[in-house]
Amino acid sequence: MPAWLRDYRRAWLAGDLTAGLIVTVMLIPQSLAYAMLAGLPPQVGLYASILPLVAYAALGSSMTLAVGPVAVVSLMTASALQPLAQSGSAEYATMAMQLALISGGMLLAFGALRLGFLAYFLSHPVISGFITGSAILIAIGQLSHILGVRAPGSGVLEKLSALLAALPQTQWPTLVIGMATLAFLLLARSAMAPLLVRAGVPDATAAVLAKLAPMLAVVVSTAIVGYGGLDRTAGIAVVGEVPRGLPQLSLALPDAPMLELLWLPALLIALVGFVESVSVAQSLALKRQQRIVPNRELLGLGVANVASALSGGYPVTGGFARSVVNFAAGAHTPLAGVVSAALMALVIAAFTGLFFHLPHAVLAATIIVAVTSLIDVDAFRRAWRYDRADALSLLGTALGVMALGVEAGILAGVALSLGALVWRSSRPHMAVVGRVPGTEHFRNVLRHKVETVPGLLALRVDESLFFANATVVEDRIGDELRLDPALRQVLLICSAVNQIDATALEVLTELERSLATRGIVLMLAEVKGPVMDRLRSTALGQRLDGRIFLSVHDAFTYAQPSAPPS
Amino acid sequence: MPAWLRDYRRAWLAGDLTAGLIVTVMLIPQSLAYAMLAGLPPQVGLYASILPLVAYAALGSSMTLAVGPVAVVSLMTASALQPLAQSGSAEYATMAMQLALISGGMLLAFGALRLGFLAYFLSHPVISGFITGSAILIAIGQLSHILGVRAPGSGVLEKLSALLAALPQTQWPTLVIGMATLAFLLLARSAMAPLLVRAGVPDATAAVLAKLAPMLAVVVSTAIVGYGGLDRTAGIAVVGEVPRGLPQLSLALPDAPMLELLWLPALLIALVGFVESVSVAQSLALKRQQRIVPNRELLGLGVANVASALSGGYPVTGGFARSVVNFAAGAHTPLAGVVSAALMALVIAAFTGLFFHLPHAVLAATIIVAVTSLIDVDAFRRAWRYDRADALSLLGTALGVMALGVEAGILAGVALSLGALVWRSSRPHMAVVGRVPGTEHFRNVLRHKVETVPGLLALRVDESLFFANATVVEDRIGDELRLDPALRQVLLICSAVNQIDATALEVLTELERSLATRGIVLMLAEVKGPVMDRLRSTALGQRLDGRIFLSVHDAFTYAQPSAPPS
Repeated sequence: MPAWLRDYRRAWLAGDLTAGLIVTVMLIPQSLAYAMLAGLPPQVGLYASILPLVAYAALGSSMTLAVGPVAVVSLMTASALQPLAQSGSAEYATMAMQLALISGGMLLAFGALRLGFLAYFLSHPVISGFITGSAILIAIGQLSHILGVRAPGSGVLEKLSALLAALPQTQWPTLVIGMATLAFLLLARSAMAPLLVRAGVPDATAAVLAKLAPMLAVVVSTAIVGYGGLDRTAGIAVVGEVPRGLPQLSLALPDAPMLELLWLPALLIALVGFVESVSVAQSLALKRQQRIVPNRELLGLGVANVASALSGGYPVTGGFARSVVNFAAGAHTPLAGVVSAALMALVIAAFTGLFFHLPHAVLAATIIVAVTSLIDVDAFRRAWRYDRADALSLLGTALGVMALGVEAGILAGVALSLGALVWRSSRPHMAVVGRVPGTEHFRNVLRHKVETVPGLLALRVDESLFFANATVVEDRIGDELRLDPALRQVLLICSAVNQIDATALEVLTELERSLATRGIVLMLAEVKGPVMDRLRSTALGQRLDGRIFLSVHDAFTYAQPSAPPS
Repeated sequence: MPAWLRDYRRAWLAGDLTAGLIVTVMLIPQSLAYAMLAGLPPQVGLYASILPLVAYAALGSSMTLAVGPVAVVSLMTASALQPLAQSGSAEYATMAMQLALISGGMLLAFGALRLGFLAYFLSHPVISGFITGSAILIAIGQLSHILGVRAPGSGVLEKLSALLAALPQTQWPTLVIGMATLAFLLLARSAMAPLLVRAGVPDATAAVLAKLAPMLAVVVSTAIVGYGGLDRTAGIAVVGEVPRGLPQLSLALPDAPMLELLWLPALLIALVGFVESVSVAQSLALKRQQRIVPNRELLGLGVANVASALSGGYPVTGGFARSVVNFAAGAHTPLAGVVSAALMALVIAAFTGLFFHLPHAVLAATIIVAVTSLIDVDAFRRAWRYDRADALSLLGTALGVMALGVEAGILAGVALSLGALVWRSSRPHMAVVGRVPGTEHFRNVLRHKVETVPGLLALRVDESLFFANATVVEDRIGDELRLDPALRQVLLICSAVNQIDATALEVLTELERSLATRGIVLMLAEVKGPVMDRLRSTALGQRLDGRIFLSVHDAFTYAQPSAPPS
């Protein structure tokens, strides 16, 4: 039994029930819309909103994360499956279940192996670029539903040119209902909460109520289209028949060729879903001093995806907007999620007929409004001001996603951010230092009036030493020796060296030997404990015995010729 | 005119001439053997040993690097081209020239863009694993020539099983001559230099003479096979007709589909060749206090490869053994290389007939002996003792090369070493510190008797803050706050933080905000200059204004409640 259930307090019940209800009202249009985005029949979105919520409640570590279908993962599902099968076909739906199964299995395996740190390979600029690129791709993709035309294509340019070509076929009634919904939702987002507050509704409640606008749009538009018979008379595309009844449990194991096709998208879905989920969960948990355990999140999301696969769903993860509403509406425990699951089960068991006249254009409008809030141009501006390399990896990821698709884009982003990391560390800050007269402090000779010891080069390297910069340090020492042929001692100050990897160790070992053949002594100072522990047992450590000093001061005292200075 | 030529001194001439001659004697059998290894006709190896040497002499920065065909690059050439064309065919030879052209073009482009640092992406463990894996692959591949059988295959296991299957077809006379050469070369390597020294030859001269054993084996075996007519009577495979005359200059530009096939192998050949070259050149330059300029090496090796492509050759780079001999034999300037080139031109213009009866088995034996000296098992043992992650990336690269081939192996190695880098930095050393009584020193509370300030958490992080560890630091602070709910101030000591990337900046910004909402103050101390310069203009830097302290002591003084301590 999960801890939250064992220690459940009566006082939490009202909050959990309210939040569960409100999240359900958000979840109904979203699950239908995201299934459409993923290229799946509407009921698949509903299926993915029942068992996964219960599974996460049993194993996840967040008290307020709302799991279910989300926009970005739905896009990733579509982009993985559209080259493999016809959207809407039974084969496509089976592959979507298998994608959830593989993805869930990977999350469980990572959790069992405690590999939560894998997610850290995705830096914020990469994630931010990925989300923004995906959001733009999604929004542009949905424009065809607003226009009532077909405009297939995978990249942004392809989609846009298909849209332009299809413009003459615009379905005017569909465009009217789509634009009206879009306008209403955008207005609701910016004006509804302030209006409610002015009408006396408390701030938090107003914010939550404003999130229910999509449901209002769904109800009103469905009623208009249904009563007017606009699906038949005006050709407005609607959701149509949604099979009633709870999902059948079944297990469709992928065979080896399918596994080979799906493992990479499944891995990326698992990682992106996990990172998104954990960052939402963490920001909410911090507000209540709760704790998110990444390895438990892996298990929670893993079983949620396996549960989705078993019950006819598709990949799920923790959603940003729904989790925030869940939190704000007073959820205290995952019981809120269980309540949502029960209500969704009720809907699918009895009320699917209500969705018959729901227009696709309205769902598309809710998707567009939801994803445009994910577009974060400011993140690029901030990154550019702070760190160009990070800004470029953000931009590269976003452009990569838009031009090449989600998989190639995110892989390019990871490569860019690792490249940026190595590049930055490959040009470490180094300073030749001397003693501030009369003190035990040592500063850059270029910036301060300091004393140096003739024949001694004291070089401070402000970076860990590893394969990308060891040679740079070696080169710098070589340069200094050429500039001053009288140098007989080289002191490397390691106060900022947190690690020395095997490559740097080899470079230093060789440097020491080649200096020794020229009668020049290498010395180290301020080597950190963990670095020293490793160095001790190496050949270099043994050769340097007696020439590794605790402080630069000690090294200077040793280096100072005992004869009176000339 | 290169600087070495402008400032040439007569005193260097004798050394350059001797070294040029001795290197030529090594180069003749090696160029024939490595062409065979690369799947090319023997003259291609000779062609690659003329113009490239002159081109490098004009632009390279090393005084003693001996450029030309080398074992590992020959293997990479074979593995790139064998899937695309029949070895020995004209098409194959054209592709080899194009490979050299693309590779040379890339080196020139990297040089022009000053991208010498790109080579640092290959860590020593990856290079070491790559060289060892390649050497084993090469040695096993040559066994078929010693046995006189055909045993094709790309991976080690494939080659070995083909060898086993072909064992019954062993050509006994070939095996005898191959084994005899192998035994002689191995003996020469271990015993010749000591014997010569005992006979009164100086150490350095003896070492150089021992390197000429392969030429001796070539001369003797060619004479025996030639006079005995063993190629006809005993079926020993020989080099046969080698076209006489200098190479024709020609330019075979690759078309777009060819470029698509060759760019990745060309890039890897460029990088591996560059890294190998620079590391040899650097170790030799250090002994004479000369300087290697990586960006000039890119240009030198780039034109050498373009020259090789223009004159019917294939990819070249600086060779380890030949460069060491060149240095030891007294080369002072690249004139030694020009001398070698002239002598090679003489050989190909007049004496190619002498190679007719040279047995393949003898060339194979020289290759095997040359590459077994590259196998470095001890590097793994050393890496394992020092750093498991580095040792695993070495092993992964070696196994990858042997099982999957050179390209996949080296890419796996790069991924492993980047992974190791991120993984290591993702678990930074952190310590809660307090004041050593009566001093301004601050130490780990777990290891020393120190004073702390009630309500203040002082945490030192011994690592740069970046995407892979920012969340770990945030989690640690969260843990400490849960353990001691009375904490009201969090001090982050940044003395070992050399960088803060955009991800870590965001995490810290969010941390500061969420702490602030709980009435907890975030402070920083000992922020380094370059980090501070960037931080200042950020939202976090502005919010922290007045709470960033030069020293931990200042921060403790600020944090100390002014009321008398309870």
